[in-house]
Amino acid sequence: MSSTFIGNLALSIFGQSHSAAIGTTLDGIPAGEPIDMDLLGKFLRRRSPGSFPWATTRKEYDVPEVLCGIVNGKTCGAPITAIIRNKDTKSSDYDNIRDIPRPSHADFTANVKYKGFQDVSGGGHFSGRLTAALCLAGGICLQILARRGIYIGAHVGSVGHYQDQSFDPMAVDKSIFSALHDMSFPTINREAAEDMIGSIQDAKINGDSVGGSVECAAIGLPPGLGDPIFDGMENRISRLIFAIPAVKGIEFGLGFSAASMLGSYHNDPFCISKDSIATSQNNHGGILGGITSGMPLIFRVAIKPTPSISKPQQSVSLSKMESAALSIRGRHDPCIVPRAVPCVESAAAIAILDAILQPCNLEK
Amino acid sequence: MSSTFIGNLALSIFGQSHSAAIGTTLDGIPAGEPIDMDLLGKFLRRRSPGSFPWATTRKEYDVPEVLCGIVNGKTCGAPITAIIRNKDTKSSDYDNIRDIPRPSHADFTANVKYKGFQDVSGGGHFSGRLTAALCLAGGICLQILARRGIYIGAHVGSVGHYQDQSFDPMAVDKSIFSALHDMSFPTINREAAEDMIGSIQDAKINGDSVGGSVECAAIGLPPGLGDPIFDGMENRISRLIFAIPAVKGIEFGLGFSAASMLGSYHNDPFCISKDSIATSQNNHGGILGGITSGMPLIFRVAIKPTPSISKPQQSVSLSKMESAALSIRGRHDPCIVPRAVPCVESAAAIAILDAILQPCNLEK
Amino acid sequence: MSSTFIGNLALSIFGQSHSAAIGTTLDGIPAGEPIDMDLLGKFLRRRSPGSFPWATTRKEYDVPEVLCGIVNGKTCGAPITAIIRNKDTKSSDYDNIRDIPRPSHADFTANVKYKGFQDVSGGGHFSGRLTAALCLAGGICLQILARRGIYIGAHVGSVGHYQDQSFDPMAVDKSIFSALHDMSFPTINREAAEDMIGSIQDAKINGDSVGGSVECAAIGLPPGLGDPIFDGMENRISRLIFAIPAVKGIEFGLGFSAASMLGSYHNDPFCISKDSIATSQNNHGGILGGITSGMPLIFRVAIKPTPSISKPQQSVSLSKMESAALSIRGRHDPCIVPRAVPCVESAAAIAILDAILQPCNLEK
Amino acid sequence: MSSTFIGNLALSIFGQSHSAAIGTTLDGIPAGEPIDMDLLGKFLRRRSPGSFPWATTRKEYDVPEVLCGIVNGKTCGAPITAIIRNKDTKSSDYDNIRDIPRPSHADFTANVKYKGFQDVSGGGHFSGRLTAALCLAGGICLQILARRGIYIGAHVGSVGHYQDQSFDPMAVDKSIFSALHDMSFPTINREAAEDMIGSIQDAKINGDSVGGSVECAAIGLPPGLGDPIFDGMENRISRLIFAIPAVKGIEFGLGFSAASMLGSYHNDPFCISKDSIATSQNNHGGILGGITSGMPLIFRVAIKPTPSISKPQQSVSLSKMESAALSIRGRHDPCIVPRAVPCVESAAAIAILDAILQPCNLEK
Repeated sequence: MSSTFIGNLALSIFGQSHSAAIGTTLDGIPAGEPIDMDLLGKFLRRRSPGSFPWATTRKEYDVPEVLCGIVNGKTCGAPITAIIRNKDTKSSDYDNIRDIPRPSHADFTANVKYKGFQDVSGGGHFSGRLTAALCLAGGICLQILARRGIYIGAHVGSVGHYQDQSFDPMAVDKSIFSALHDMSFPTINREAAEDMIGSIQDAKINGDSVGGSVECAAIGLPPGLGDPIFDGMENRISRLIFAIPAVKGIEFGLGFSAASMLGSYHNDPFCISKDSIATSQNNHGGILGGITSGMPLIFRVAIKPTPSISKPQQSVSLSKMESAALSIRGRHDPCIVPRAVPCVESAAAIAILDAILQPCNLEK
Repeated sequence: MSSTFIGNLALSIFGQSHSAAIGTTLDGIPAGEPIDMDLLGKFLRRRSPGSFPWATTRKEYDVPEVLCGIVNGKTCGAPITAIIRNKDTKSSDYDNIRDIPRPSHADFTANVKYKGFQDVSGGGHFSGRLTAALCLAGGICLQILARRGIYIGAHVGSVGHYQDQSFDPMAVDKSIFSALHDMSFPTINREAAEDMIGSIQDAKINGDSVGGSVECAAIGLPPGLGDPIFDGMENRISRLIFAIPAVKGIEFGLGFSAASMLGSYHNDPFCISKDSIATSQNNHGGILGGITSGMPLIFRVAIKPTPSISKPQQSVSLSKMESAALSIRGRHDPCIVPRAVPCVESAAAIAILDAILQPCNLEK
Repeated sequence: MSSTFIGNLALSIFGQSHSAAIGTTLDGIPAGEPIDMDLLGKFLRRRSPGSFPWATTRKEYDVPEVLCGIVNGKTCGAPITAIIRNKDTKSSDYDNIRDIPRPSHADFTANVKYKGFQDVSGGGHFSGRLTAALCLAGGICLQILARRGIYIGAHVGSVGHYQDQSFDPMAVDKSIFSALHDMSFPTINREAAEDMIGSIQDAKINGDSVGGSVECAAIGLPPGLGDPIFDGMENRISRLIFAIPAVKGIEFGLGFSAASMLGSYHNDPFCISKDSIATSQNNHGGILGGITSGMPLIFRVAIKPTPSISKPQQSVSLSKMESAALSIRGRHDPCIVPRAVPCVESAAAIAILDAILQPCNLEK
Repeated sequence: MSSTFIGNLALSIFGQSHSAAIGTTLDGIPAGEPIDMDLLGKFLRRRSPGSFPWATTRKEYDVPEVLCGIVNGKTCGAPITAIIRNKDTKSSDYDNIRDIPRPSHADFTANVKYKGFQDVSGGGHFSGRLTAALCLAGGICLQILARRGIYIGAHVGSVGHYQDQSFDPMAVDKSIFSALHDMSFPTINREAAEDMIGSIQDAKINGDSVGGSVECAAIGLPPGLGDPIFDGMENRISRLIFAIPAVKGIEFGLGFSAASMLGSYHNDPFCISKDSIATSQNNHGGILGGITSGMPLIFRVAIKPTPSISKPQQSVSLSKMESAALSIRGRHDPCIVPRAVPCVESAAAIAILDAILQPCNLEK
């Protein structure tokens, strides 16, 4: 279904980088939920490029317009459609990529799939611009979750070879999320941020880009959310996370580190904590058998370096079927990782709200 | 939908570890496809415990019975349902886990979700036993793919701290798959296998278990398969891979290694090779923008150590809400990784066939 | 998805008329529901041909085997798969229909769709035999609904030109369902039944068949079930009802009769009845805007005459592309309507349970 | 999923009668399809009220704005989102219906389902206004079908007791569709139209409304479209047709008339016609076993009288739980049937295009 996610919620993401608008429809949101548009705008600004050295100089004001589904500030049970107009577009920047696909972009594969009819401007439907629509949906879900005591936060886990400190999986707190949400470059360790920003500036100066990772946590989740086999929390979250371009991997709990461990070390003993069941360590990242355990849900996402670099690159001319040199013009992020942080939070929020809105049972 | 995957194919996985049978229904397979039952049986035996030191002593004969959908050896267009009877079950082994959940198993979370009505025997629907049903479906898909020149193979990427050599992402060949499929402990480097088996035996002697990883490749894929946003190849494969219990992470192409790279290094230049478009290196793992590029598709999966260990562990009594010691009886795999190899291939095969069966267009 | 229904429940129907077994998987049934297998068997026998003059002489014992999903008589939350073995099959009866399609059967259209690979025996996946699998699923749903005070019943509304009395839409009572369920030829008016049976016997003697209709009611439904636009109760029920071969129409409330009415006559005034909102007449058939009103839900289904008749018919030879006479051998129902009654109840039960299991909301 | 239809296409319908806009997203339309916006506008005007005596005086200009998915006049493979702004809205007309639900409207049932948070203005998401969004999607699908030689047309089958002539099921021709599409009150028999318009004017004068029916045909369909069990053409079309408010029934081919027939009369013999397989009569309405036969596909839809009438009616006050008289103000159609004609065509077009875009098979 490509751009339509169907679970307990139905979510569609539409638009191209340079179409009249991008947007989202969220179908299945309960009626009566207050949606704070200022808060939503503020959330979207976390994804905006701003005037930071790590981001594109394209200006995106990202003021969402709600077309329907919200009446007098509250959801009315009908689908919510919200759009963002595209403004500062320069389609002429993309003239040559119809013939000469940019390395590690979707230009070539989209050309094959859509037989040349794809929208090439700005990467079309494959552009990172579409994550603004994901954040629109995610920002709404985050507000609904927060009202139920469920909070989600993420930070830049690494950029290049510089690592941020990780969340303490036993003690993730709402306050750390608040602090992170207020930072333009959200890290737990402020010194790490400086190193990371330095490496991004180096890349920028060299006409290059750099990759990184994002760590995300969700707290306040009741145990028992999620489903076995194809709709476990990992399946759900992964399906949404890979909607973010440039994501190349995801791991839950200890993830790939668990692969080298002994069971006696990795297993998390159950214990009683504050009259309820908990685990005395949290290597499992809050998910067992696809279902939430009530412990903080923790995952990490690998993000490749932005493929758009101004350094000359080697490609091919599709029309001539011969080698061709490519210099990418246009405005691009030398590192997409800080702007990916609210996107990762959004994907997690949608997945978690989807799991919460599970089919339930008329009382006997 | 928990145990029903819906894409272009519909796939359901049903059964519990100790129910009368487990099985699968595959709806949407084209008519007229020969299915070789001997080949399917042979594929299933790759998942069977055999009498190897790394596997449970539970005997699973895993002889599939096709109930419908195949007539005279060929698919007839109707749903294919195939089952495997459960035989060597010892439910009494699981009497105490209803009250005392096993650490890092789904016992506790399933108990919350299903309010105590879940099938606890052998882990019920959450058991690794269910991967035999996944392999039933996967084995059928693999035959259909092979007929179209698409081949999938995987190997044990690591066990504990021992690593196998990786696939050469530019030169994965059908012959390496054949060789791996014939090995009971499939590695590219035979010496690595010995070290790995040794570490599994050590774990077993200590009443412990050990984790690892699986690397999988698919070759012969045409460019242009997959969809943007929610149904990219990464989304599809992830959704199926996390159906395998114990998987904690997945990465495509260079995956988490890409996170520390510069774009100029990570980007894969396009080139002409044998009159068609290729890339001169394959860091992207055969997927760009969610869509296949025609290069080998490569991903790696992290598998946690089997949570069932015979070492005494700490847990709680759900009825008494107090700490309780737990000793797990029953027969378990000290390392699930080698048996996970055909499961990973199965998940990949289903995802790829699902992408191939894309909606297409009546000719104009 | 053809044979897989996806809503809040996932339901698959599998099997062919002469395959080893037919069956169903129901995924999403809440855990802890007692399922009475005797009651289920009794329900299935209402669909069985018995030794009645209106039914085929094929013997179908229809003893269901539950493969999984039910433990100690209760649902465990995992998918429920139940099968019925096919026994009294005579595939040789169908040798010639591969080449000479039976008029008004699916032989020709299935041949085009499946390129000749379809299972022709007994109509394969298109056979009325598959409704036994629908009744398996429906019988389970009916038990779960009854426990919540929701009852469903149907009767033969007409056969040929003979009409049964209709349900009183304001006063459908559980007792009338009980009475109908005990009849081999369920009608409200017993004299109508005699006339109907007479017309069926006439058709049988003449090597012919006759059509009819079924009226179905559901009571005890709370107001507020169903969804707007594509998932109203009418959409849901229709989608399931047309899974029954030979159904050619469906109408809700007054249905086609409403088309000739004035609004002032058709509109149902609201009133207070027993401290809750009701309507003082029930032309709307219990559904307004796709959502239940709390009044009895009533619909009628048109069933064409069984296409299998022993009278000689005109068809074509697909291999020779020329006219060909056809005499249908095999055992067939001269009127499928009485056996369709539990099938219609099943479709309604699945649709209603699907609507009841609506996504719900974690408490704020 | 309420307002999201998922098949081979994904279709969402969003908006409320008085929200900023209504619209649709169509995901899965092939790339490269020219979309003629003038033709689409013309199609939408067939649904517009115009200044006809049978229609509301609400002015709806219904100028669609394409937000994305179409580039340089052609589909680009990304989701197509198109919206229509709501302009001539008078929300104050609906102040009292929050407390006093209109008989045979969705006011009461929506109030229960959405706990009072539903948008009551103009009926909110349940308004007939939403069919403009259905027509937006349908108009696009109709253009794509026409390019493949598939044409769909409908006419007013009846209003009150006046019947139009039916399509000749053996000889539906494109020219009759063209003629019907040019009429503001489309009937085959022009005299019938006069009688119908007269009965609508009578109803209007009396502050009343009147019901009717629509007959629809599709020609040029290749045999072999559709799927068994839950996704037959009848299931698909029904699911979409019941998205039109006020529809109370649907029948295919002879429909309810088939219920009184003998098989020997109803069965349609196969014959050879112009070197291909046809039937010598078309009682089956172009569908056998859920799959198209290649004969004209024909169905009829029952439409209840518009529930909004200005005659005083009896209802209840939800706040006081007592009887209350209701006089409906606002502008309404005394007969919705002529405006339903393009809506029925739209539902059919979406269902048929969905069936055409069936999963297909990479060549072996």
